Amino acid sequence: MPKINKYVDIDTVEREAKKDLIDRHSPFITVEGVAKKCEMLPVKVKMGNEYTHPDDFDHYIESITLFDGETKLAMATFVPGTLGNEKSHAEVTFNIRPMKNKLNLIAHGYCTKHGIWESTPVVVEVAE
Amino acid sequence: MPKINKYVDIDTVEREAKKDLIDRHSPFITVEGVAKKCEMLPVKVKMGNEYTHPDDFDHYIESITLFDGETKLAMATFVPGTLGNEKSHAEVTFNIRPMKNKLNLIAHGYCTKHGIWESTPVVVEVAE
Amino acid sequence: MPKINKYVDIDTVEREAKKDLIDRHSPFITVEGVAKKCEMLPVKVKMGNEYTHPDDFDHYIESITLFDGETKLAMATFVPGTLGNEKSHAEVTFNIRPMKNKLNLIAHGYCTKHGIWESTPVVVEVAE
Amino acid sequence: MPKINKYVDIDTVEREAKKDLIDRHSPFITVEGVAKKCEMLPVKVKMGNEYTHPDDFDHYIESITLFDGETKLAMATFVPGTLGNEKSHAEVTFNIRPMKNKLNLIAHGYCTKHGIWESTPVVVEVAE
Repeated sequence: MPKINKYVDIDTVEREAKKDLIDRHSPFITVEGVAKKCEMLPVKVKMGNEYTHPDDFDHYIESITLFDGETKLAMATFVPGTLGNEKSHAEVTFNIRPMKNKLNLIAHGYCTKHGIWESTPVVVEVAE
Repeated sequence: MPKINKYVDIDTVEREAKKDLIDRHSPFITVEGVAKKCEMLPVKVKMGNEYTHPDDFDHYIESITLFDGETKLAMATFVPGTLGNEKSHAEVTFNIRPMKNKLNLIAHGYCTKHGIWESTPVVVEVAE
Repeated sequence: MPKINKYVDIDTVEREAKKDLIDRHSPFITVEGVAKKCEMLPVKVKMGNEYTHPDDFDHYIESITLFDGETKLAMATFVPGTLGNEKSHAEVTFNIRPMKNKLNLIAHGYCTKHGIWESTPVVVEVAE
Repeated sequence: MPKINKYVDIDTVEREAKKDLIDRHSPFITVEGVAKKCEMLPVKVKMGNEYTHPDDFDHYIESITLFDGETKLAMATFVPGTLGNEKSHAEVTFNIRPMKNKLNLIAHGYCTKHGIWESTPVVVEVAE
């Protein structure tokens, strides 16, 4: 409390409305390319995989935060209208630079109506 | 994950170092005055009650977020040095205006070394 | 560009609509108590002095930022509804700790419809 | 005040130290692909073109904000260490969706030691 809603595989969910609710609120992390120690690494976080989320004034994705374990790496904040007030995937690509052998990436998305949603963690092996 | 550390009454904690760790990282919410519907209500959030937290460049309180249930009301962001690089209680007073009968206030503090810490919830009865 | 709108004394402004526009968007800084070096100092920033600003979903005060000269000290971020969707003075009190003899406080407020507005600077003499 | 430092073409600057100061603090905006009305448009903002900026605890790029004219579209916030505490180009790619014929993109970067820096504006013609 505030509840941290966690992603569950929507293939295991029966009700269509619930699939939609879960998917459109969940952050999906994609690491672009191969992680190498001390080199820049683009990490994309996209809200919703199959379902889009409103960008209404009273209902929008206000922020996306990227963590490595318990450490906040970066946060993006949006306003209603960033996505043209149309249903969309809010998305941001952060550039980070790993200095250790393993990252444990996790993202939070915040919806102004449905609270905090957490991605599944993405473990990244970092090459020397 | 990221772990949300929750406040526990430090009187129940034995080790001094652990008392200090918990107390200095926990947000404490104080509602100033009586909450009346549709009137402005100052809500103070102070990090640490008995123990102070460093304000070092590599170890400081970066943000305090206030929620009503799952709804974010306001967030304050700090930089290292806001508190003169001295051990302190990071503190912010937000003004909110309740429009319903009950608030369920809860705060998160974020420490750049020790992650997210959650206050105990403060239920506020709002007079008509 | 983005234009930084600066406060002008509304007594010098003739048109009522313009007085209202300027006043309700301008941050007003109040230092509470006497500033002493190395002691905590509450600094209140209030949007609008005589005129209130909407807290509508498509028109609200999204943030207040406090600077000392060119250095950001703290930032507060709000969502529409923090102020009950009623016309109000958005307001936040930051606690800072001055370590030098003089502060040059200045605040920015951001309105989602009317952009960035800058307060008049407040010079604070800090006692030893 | 706070001063908004504006980018000037460093080819017109003589002193190497000044070229470095200006370039590494300036946000550079790149629109990826062709802007089409109502379609998602990635906008990259990179701090520094030829010169990199420290990512030290007491000296780092704390935020990048993207505006369309006077309207804030999105803001990214970083912590020291996002870039491995190595000299780097802080960089973020926001996804926006233009709904009108022309964008007037402009970015602000904030350095914890050298304040606010503004990009040159990028006018984007949006195809129907």
